[in-house]
Amino acid sequence: MLDQVLKTLEGRRHASQAALKELLSIPSVSTKPEHADDVKRCAAWVADQLKAAAFDVSIMPTGGHPAVVARNKHQAGRPTVLVYGHYDVQPAEPLDLWTTPPFEPTVRNGAIRARGAADDKGQVWCHIESLLAWQAHGGPPVNLTLLIEGEEEIGSPNLGAFVRKHKDALKADVAVVSDTNQFARGLPAITYGLRGLAYMEVKVTAANRDLHSGLFGGTVANPANELCALLGTLHDREGRVTVDGFYDDVVALTPQERQEWAKLPWNETNYALGLGAPKIAGEAGYSSLERRWARPTCDINGLTSGYQGPGAKTVLPCEASAKVSMRLVPEQDPLRIVEALEATLHARCPATVRLEIHCHSHTPAVLVPTDGRAIQLAAEAVEIGFNKRPVFMREGGSIPVVNMFKRELGIDTLLIGFGLDDDNVHAPNEKFDLDALHAGTRTCAALYERLGRL
Amino acid sequence: MLDQVLKTLEGRRHASQAALKELLSIPSVSTKPEHADDVKRCAAWVADQLKAAAFDVSIMPTGGHPAVVARNKHQAGRPTVLVYGHYDVQPAEPLDLWTTPPFEPTVRNGAIRARGAADDKGQVWCHIESLLAWQAHGGPPVNLTLLIEGEEEIGSPNLGAFVRKHKDALKADVAVVSDTNQFARGLPAITYGLRGLAYMEVKVTAANRDLHSGLFGGTVANPANELCALLGTLHDREGRVTVDGFYDDVVALTPQERQEWAKLPWNETNYALGLGAPKIAGEAGYSSLERRWARPTCDINGLTSGYQGPGAKTVLPCEASAKVSMRLVPEQDPLRIVEALEATLHARCPATVRLEIHCHSHTPAVLVPTDGRAIQLAAEAVEIGFNKRPVFMREGGSIPVVNMFKRELGIDTLLIGFGLDDDNVHAPNEKFDLDALHAGTRTCAALYERLGRL
Repeated sequence: MLDQVLKTLEGRRHASQAALKELLSIPSVSTKPEHADDVKRCAAWVADQLKAAAFDVSIMPTGGHPAVVARNKHQAGRPTVLVYGHYDVQPAEPLDLWTTPPFEPTVRNGAIRARGAADDKGQVWCHIESLLAWQAHGGPPVNLTLLIEGEEEIGSPNLGAFVRKHKDALKADVAVVSDTNQFARGLPAITYGLRGLAYMEVKVTAANRDLHSGLFGGTVANPANELCALLGTLHDREGRVTVDGFYDDVVALTPQERQEWAKLPWNETNYALGLGAPKIAGEAGYSSLERRWARPTCDINGLTSGYQGPGAKTVLPCEASAKVSMRLVPEQDPLRIVEALEATLHARCPATVRLEIHCHSHTPAVLVPTDGRAIQLAAEAVEIGFNKRPVFMREGGSIPVVNMFKRELGIDTLLIGFGLDDDNVHAPNEKFDLDALHAGTRTCAALYERLGRL
Repeated sequence: MLDQVLKTLEGRRHASQAALKELLSIPSVSTKPEHADDVKRCAAWVADQLKAAAFDVSIMPTGGHPAVVARNKHQAGRPTVLVYGHYDVQPAEPLDLWTTPPFEPTVRNGAIRARGAADDKGQVWCHIESLLAWQAHGGPPVNLTLLIEGEEEIGSPNLGAFVRKHKDALKADVAVVSDTNQFARGLPAITYGLRGLAYMEVKVTAANRDLHSGLFGGTVANPANELCALLGTLHDREGRVTVDGFYDDVVALTPQERQEWAKLPWNETNYALGLGAPKIAGEAGYSSLERRWARPTCDINGLTSGYQGPGAKTVLPCEASAKVSMRLVPEQDPLRIVEALEATLHARCPATVRLEIHCHSHTPAVLVPTDGRAIQLAAEAVEIGFNKRPVFMREGGSIPVVNMFKRELGIDTLLIGFGLDDDNVHAPNEKFDLDALHAGTRTCAALYERLGRL
């Protein structure tokens, strides 16, 4: 049957591109109130497509933009798969940097170009299009629930409550998210690990007001000096994080992982060149891929203090603050790490200043065993879709919905994404390769067949 | 004759306050284009007063706001004194923090309250008022040139060129500036030392664009991390600056200076309390007055990098920069210090980032020997004005015009100021004590008599 579905997909290529263009032409920018009607219109468009695939569809209210929830007829004895995606997009600004307008999708040089092309409309479309093809052959042999939300780009503020409220309706054996990348063009990947995150704010204060640096300099602590001195202690010369106990629970890379990653097509020099950096950097003893995928970090994301305009102002600032976040790896406990940073900084802080630290958010790392049944079936599906065996890779970022599904629904997530590093996600001239679109659609079609065997 | 002048001043107290109120009611805010006419009007007001004192007055163009230049009839054989002041003021914002409107001068609790009351209109008025009184007695027995500029609060951008152009007309034996403070209320002071300044901008860059801290964190240098690490090395645990060679040329305090300063009424605990700081801080082995007046510093005046808004953004910033300024003390060569900071930071900077440093400005420290003839005559004048012998103090800030007069005219400057630490200079509710006004006016009258003996 899968062969028939794939054949149907071949015949629908032009129709598929045309439909995706329709989807991409709706400016569903979730962060902008003036686009609220576009967001609604986009939800309705997605719902209509899923109805056409014979799904039972609801456009459901949340505290914010609506979520589209769609189910095929669930049959007892079949495994159930929850497919998550989002139909909202980032703002397109700065508009003058776009070669063609962000909401007038254009095919150029083998890619469809528009805001949301890769993140995440193009990838959501792969799933819907595969279901439309399956419908021509009686529907997929698996119970499916699709949850396509409209608030991912604003941090999914209502998704947690929504999933908790509809826990029963969303119950599944495994989740699928297509919002990640191939390892490289034509080398598909399944992402089996994500780093976690602990995001902190660190503030140092001394005097109760800004002072003149001439009249007072040298007689009272300068919070900017002290903040730099404190944060400057957070790494040693080998690039290791010096927060007490930071590495205690870190799971070491296995020799097998290191061997496999070393085989991936990757060039450190090209990597530095591509970033425009003088050279690569990071923790001694690890390759860039190892650093990115499997080693924890501590990065200052923002610094602010005193005078920041052009020229000079002789102010001794009364406060200095930093955003400091740590990427976490498997078995690091976010709460323990948060407390370790707090304890370390307080222990190192002189009594001449006040130190305040608070945590914006924290989420643990994710690691899905690559020898599980679902991930092996997914790998078969990707191989059918791309005509190439996928690599198993990790990603350095965090995808909060993966932790949420684990926490609220108790299920793992398969991260099967079709994007590429050069897709300009969140930037001008976002695009999605037509090859990725079609291979991705084939992969989804195969995935629904394979996961039926779960 | 001086006694007669002082008696005349007694009789003019009300008239003097009324005239100062007129001066303070003119919003001569030099930085705001919409006040350009007020600035002009203020120059004309000052000129008219000096004409009434029988001075030959010109309102002279500069590249910006005009300068008022006034001379009495210079007589051969008399010493010549150049009096510098400024008639422009800082903006008054935030207006809602003023108890009474900033340009509606009000006497309350023994002080006249308005923008510019202490800085510098009130102190300029002390000079003019004393000359009006002298005029009733045939004029002061000294050759005077007054230079009252209108751009001090915007950094005197045209003053250097003006002084160079009119070098001959401004030729003098000594300069007088009244734009500093008493040591404490009723304890007058002559300021004989100022710190210098070297103001630098330090910028660290790595990748050529902001990156996602999850996808790239740990694989490329983070400029914010590296900037903190670099600047965090600039002090040791004793509060000493670690720039190579920083203290090489520093003139040590003499035992006599340390003894005299230790006798001044000063309480370290009250100082910390007044600043709202947890405790005082600074270079080990020195008192706060010594740190402020005679020890060099290195202070971060501003920090900027990455995301600075509320909440969290997982950005790995592509650059981080800091304003870093050093207060310098006698015999430190600003240029050598600038080069030392550059060399130190470059030597400590890792090869994973680019480091750019540039100098906004630099000016040397000033130290006038307290046993000179002019300063001793000035001390007599202050004692007459305040009925109290002045202390000789230094100040932690820089007054660029002092260096300029030294450089362009080859003369020292007597810093005889009447303000107080609680005058709210550059802040809401600026004020000038009536006691300071009248004692200051008496001091000026006496000063012109005493400097006639130079």
